[in-house]
Formats: sequence, structure tokens, C-alpha cells
Amino acid sequence: MKTLTKELWLDVPQRRAIVSLHREVERLVAESGVQDGIVLVNAMHITASVFINDNESGLHHDYEVWLEKLAPFDASPSRYHHNRTGEDNADAHMKRQVMGREVVVAITDGKLHLGPWEHIFYYEFDGRRRKRVLVKILGE
Amino acid sequence: MKTLTKELWLDVPQRRAIVSLHREVERLVAESGVQDGIVLVNAMHITASVFINDNESGLHHDYEVWLEKLAPFDASPSRYHHNRTGEDNADAHMKRQVMGREVVVAITDGKLHLGPWEHIFYYEFDGRRRKRVLVKILGE
Amino acid sequence: MKTLTKELWLDVPQRRAIVSLHREVERLVAESGVQDGIVLVNAMHITASVFINDNESGLHHDYEVWLEKLAPFDASPSRYHHNRTGEDNADAHMKRQVMGREVVVAITDGKLHLGPWEHIFYYEFDGRRRKRVLVKILGE
Repeated sequence: MKTLTKELWLDVPQRRAIVSLHREVERLVAESGVQDGIVLVNAMHITASVFINDNESGLHHDYEVWLEKLAPFDASPSRYHHNRTGEDNADAHMKRQVMGREVVVAITDGKLHLGPWEHIFYYEFDGRRRKRVLVKILGE
Repeated sequence: MKTLTKELWLDVPQRRAIVSLHREVERLVAESGVQDGIVLVNAMHITASVFINDNESGLHHDYEVWLEKLAPFDASPSRYHHNRTGEDNADAHMKRQVMGREVVVAITDGKLHLGPWEHIFYYEFDGRRRKRVLVKILGE
Repeated sequence: MKTLTKELWLDVPQRRAIVSLHREVERLVAESGVQDGIVLVNAMHITASVFINDNESGLHHDYEVWLEKLAPFDASPSRYHHNRTGEDNADAHMKRQVMGREVVVAITDGKLHLGPWEHIFYYEFDGRRRKRVLVKILGE
């Protein structure tokens, strides 16, 4: 069995943003030498997501609006008890659950085995500080 | 390590529908000869989900109503910016995030290791065309 | 390849509760002897989730309130068709989709490879009976 383990550092200057991880994951799969296996890509922080969807800015705008409606930002301690701890990011912990922590992608013939529009993204819900994404590749 | 890779083609005649993948995944696990491992089952398209839940038509109806409330269909370019690109399926990209892209299921003693009511489904949110699901089996 | 397969039994006395699985998964990873691999942790029941987020009681309270708003409990057969079958737990099948069925976590140097605040939890949405979580470890 071959494996590759890599932590990617991100520092998103905004509170929220969608950042492509796609090329870097492709590069790591090539580097691993794995021909047949899987790659796990996960946020190492609990106010961020890794997800697969369309590389289209209009849709990314729509996610912003939609997630804000499902789980509105509210720094006050009245709506979210979590924000009584001195945090203001309870909404980020919810948005992340909707979008997911991780993706698992197949590797076939040494490449990411994806459909035509699948693109791997990081979604930051509470940025302005350094955070990590883990890439773990297993196979042969 | 043994592996099996298989793309399943689906062509759902409705815009939305829930389709069982269960028997086909069971069959592929048997075909793989893997006794101990995992199977990844994922949509290869970004307006569809693979999920595990109950094989009960009332619940499937409830998912339809619930997802439509969380992320309503609206082909107009006013609600969703994605639909300014000529698409009308922005809602499908959101519904898919709620239901998920993929499942990872354990294989033990050569069989899917599932609880009593777990059933693997494909959820089409923008059908009327051919789409694929990927089944990737790894183990020994 | 080394593997370890373990079913964990839980019996949550309330209808809903969040229960830590973290120490037990850590223990099983150590027991497996796997140095480099992955662990899959999934609910074996379709009205429960396994998820990774913060070990903070205020946030857990917020999840309760938030999920109840997204998918309210309603035992009557009028809101949810699933509850025409004699069940009263349709809401639980929806809450579970938001929070997810499973997590896949990397194992590196014989330990769970997690960020600083990542904590593995079971989320029961329809308790008061015995249920299972599956832990499947693969690697070398």
C-alpha cells in the first residue's frame, strides 16, 4: 500500500470565502504514485468545509446567500449560546455542517476519478487566520 | 489489495427522483471478492446525491417537500445568480449539498456492513439526461 | 493491510442527545496497530448521525434549536407522510441528513490525524432504544 499525507495551510483574509483546492489535490495524487485508491480531503477546523461542486461564481454567491438564510451570522449571545463563550462564530459551525467536513474521491489510473464538473473547494466560514486542510491518499 | 471500479449510468426521466442503488452495489461488492474493506459510492454530477436512508415512499415524499422548502426551485435569474448563466438548476446544487455527494460503507465478511434499515439511494435533482454514479471498492 | 471492525452499542435515554465517541475511536485506532490509514465511523441507524465538531455545550444546544427549526418534530400524519406508517420520527430522518451519516478520519503515526478542536460525536435523533455505530479501520 502507498500513502501520502499532506497538510495544506490556508489564510483567508475575509471572514468567508470559497477557495479551490483542485489543482493542489491533483498534484498530490500525481506525487503519491497511487494508481488505484482513494483520497480523503478534509478541513482540520470546525468552522470550514471541503466540498465538491461547480466552479461558477454565480453559484458561489448563491451559496453565500442561502447559507446565511439557513444559519444567520449573529454575534450576540442571545441567538446562539455558543456566542456566550466569547466566540462570535456559532453560525459558522452550522454552515459547515450543511456543506460537509470532507470529501472522499476515487483515484483510478493515477488520477482523480471525477465527473465533468466536479471541482474540489475549501469553504471558509470564519477566516482571517491560518487554517489547515488534510489530504490523505491511500492505494497502490 | 483488491479494487473494483465501476461507473453506473442512470437516466432519470423526471427532473427529480430517488432511485435505489442498493442491489447493484451489493452485486459489485460480491464481484470484487473483497472480504474486508470499504466501498465509496458517489454521484459524478453536482446536481445529484448518493445517500443512505429508509426505503419508505412516505419519507421520500417528505424529503421532496422539505428540500423544496430549504432550497426552492426558481428558474428566474433574480433569486439565484447561477441561473443567469442560462441554467435553471441552482436549487439542485443546494439540495445536493444537504443530502450529500457520497457514502462510504464498510465491507466485512464479503458483504456490505450495514444496519437493519440502511439502504443506498441515488437522488436526482436535475434529471432528464444521462448521469453517472461511481462505485469504488478497496480492501482485501 | 491491517483492519479492525467494531460495532459500538449506544442506548440514549432521551429522544435526542449528543454523545462523544472520541475516546473510544482513539482507543480502537491504538488497538488496531494501524500506523497509516483511515477510520470510517458511521451510524448504523437512519435516525442518527456521526459528525465532527466542537465539544462545547452551548454549541450543542444551538444545534438542537437550529435543527428543530430546519426540520421540526411533528408526530401527526399531516406534515410528514412518513408518520402515516405508525412512526413519529420523520423529522429525525431529516435532521440526520443535515448532520451526516459518517466521518472518515485519517490515521497518521498510529493516531487520529485531527485538527485542534475536531471531536467525534454521535447524534441521536430518536433514542430510547439500543443502536449501533460502526468503526472500520484500514491501513498498515
